[in-house]
Amino acid sequence: MGTASFEMFSNEYKAIIEREIVEYVNILKAPAVVKEAMIYSLQAGGKRIRPLLVFAVLEAFGKSLRIGIPAAAAIEMIHTYSLIHDDLPAMDDDDLRRGKPTNHKVFGEAVAILAGDALLTYSFQLVTDMIDPEVTAEMKLNLVSEIAKSAGAEGMVGGQVADMEGENKQLTLQELEYIHEHKTGKLLTASILSGAILAGASEEQQLHLRDFAYHLGLAFQIRDDILDIEGSVELIGKPVGSDVGNHKSTYPSLLTLQGAKQKLEHHIELAHAALGKTTLQTGLLNELTDLIANRNH
Amino acid sequence: MGTASFEMFSNEYKAIIEREIVEYVNILKAPAVVKEAMIYSLQAGGKRIRPLLVFAVLEAFGKSLRIGIPAAAAIEMIHTYSLIHDDLPAMDDDDLRRGKPTNHKVFGEAVAILAGDALLTYSFQLVTDMIDPEVTAEMKLNLVSEIAKSAGAEGMVGGQVADMEGENKQLTLQELEYIHEHKTGKLLTASILSGAILAGASEEQQLHLRDFAYHLGLAFQIRDDILDIEGSVELIGKPVGSDVGNHKSTYPSLLTLQGAKQKLEHHIELAHAALGKTTLQTGLLNELTDLIANRNH
Repeated sequence: MGTASFEMFSNEYKAIIEREIVEYVNILKAPAVVKEAMIYSLQAGGKRIRPLLVFAVLEAFGKSLRIGIPAAAAIEMIHTYSLIHDDLPAMDDDDLRRGKPTNHKVFGEAVAILAGDALLTYSFQLVTDMIDPEVTAEMKLNLVSEIAKSAGAEGMVGGQVADMEGENKQLTLQELEYIHEHKTGKLLTASILSGAILAGASEEQQLHLRDFAYHLGLAFQIRDDILDIEGSVELIGKPVGSDVGNHKSTYPSLLTLQGAKQKLEHHIELAHAALGKTTLQTGLLNELTDLIANRNH
Repeated sequence: MGTASFEMFSNEYKAIIEREIVEYVNILKAPAVVKEAMIYSLQAGGKRIRPLLVFAVLEAFGKSLRIGIPAAAAIEMIHTYSLIHDDLPAMDDDDLRRGKPTNHKVFGEAVAILAGDALLTYSFQLVTDMIDPEVTAEMKLNLVSEIAKSAGAEGMVGGQVADMEGENKQLTLQELEYIHEHKTGKLLTASILSGAILAGASEEQQLHLRDFAYHLGLAFQIRDDILDIEGSVELIGKPVGSDVGNHKSTYPSLLTLQGAKQKLEHHIELAHAALGKTTLQTGLLNELTDLIANRNH
């Protein structure tokens, strides 16, 4: 599949998921302020890489992409809740996210904490309440289990805790990889596996896709670290070099900028190689991988 | 069933759930500090009313109580996460909970927020990963859906938001009931319905049990308000009259103390009446109801 088709897929499904995540919250019978806070952060933009991964995997299996909407929305809600909580004064204390005031700056800390809690909770409800006849009860349970493991103490939350503990100290490459595999990689893996579960992927296909997700996740993070040095504030929405200011260990700080770029290339290659082993139509997934490797924001 | 049997049931299953919730966290492969923070609050004591309700409903159906352990643990984890987040400086800003320093006082705010997030996330994993052969995939999905609805924006989180918005203003009785039905009542309902789902209860039995849960939840909260006036600091672990100091609307403030006590009696009677309609062995549930109505802490 060529780049033109990828653009079409990306634009179409980004629009679909951005409409659906808001609609899912709109139908809730809940105090207006918590719904507004949830929607505010869901609408704050972003690349929607996680939902697009769900859809791209379904496409690779030749399945209907529509069946991925609830899981894609659920994972985007989890990603969004994690950003709201990460931005809190007790955590990263960020006033801006993608150039807009952070959730707690607009709604106050208490509502921000609760809006995050509500997004996380709702994500599991969305997956279990799917009514598509193609989606079996077993699939839904596998989705909840995969997503919960990826998001919780053994996944994203664990990575976040390790990241905080690693601040202002020199990390080994292994420690840095643990942080990124968990903080960013696990939820990317959940996106890819969600598509695979919904497509009825074989055990072997799931293993190759996990391998793909692992390399993609690390590539994503290494690119982030490189962007922090090379990017411009307009494009990435936060001051360039903020990691340096924080004395955070990064791939460039451990490997040099050139070494980090080599490592990025290495993971991108292994990601493509893992995709090749699935014997699926991985055009979109290959394009998404290159997009992540070359993105400038 | 007499009070002696109730005491035995209560002591036995309180001990079981207190052991299991810690064990569930111990087996996680996660940074030590987040596990410690999760366990710290899980071990902070409490009446374990929610797990006991799961078990008492299973007992009413003559089912094995063991099949309720994961769901009971999941709901206790959600209750515990809500206490951790409620105690944060941005929310109630409490330094003590049941006479012990609150989570953020011991582990810091960032870890407390993340430990709460991890407990909430793990609760859904526990339910989906149940392996008891008596528990079907449909049951697990119904459990996740019921628990998520009860805990999220349409349930506990919604009640918490409404509670915050109602601070320092005169509420109507209807507004006060909305807050308590959601903030406390919904998760009690989830406990009772979890037992019913696992026992394979009929639609009609589930309706009666929901009715029971509704009245039990309000009774629980009215008793809480009365205790805030009449209780002693040693027994309830927080300064007596703290609601008065906060200018919070309560049942006694809206109905007088005598009126609140009458309302408590009213809901207790309706709770027993709803139980009577289930045609189940509701001895333990009746005892739990009276315990909630008469508790002095």
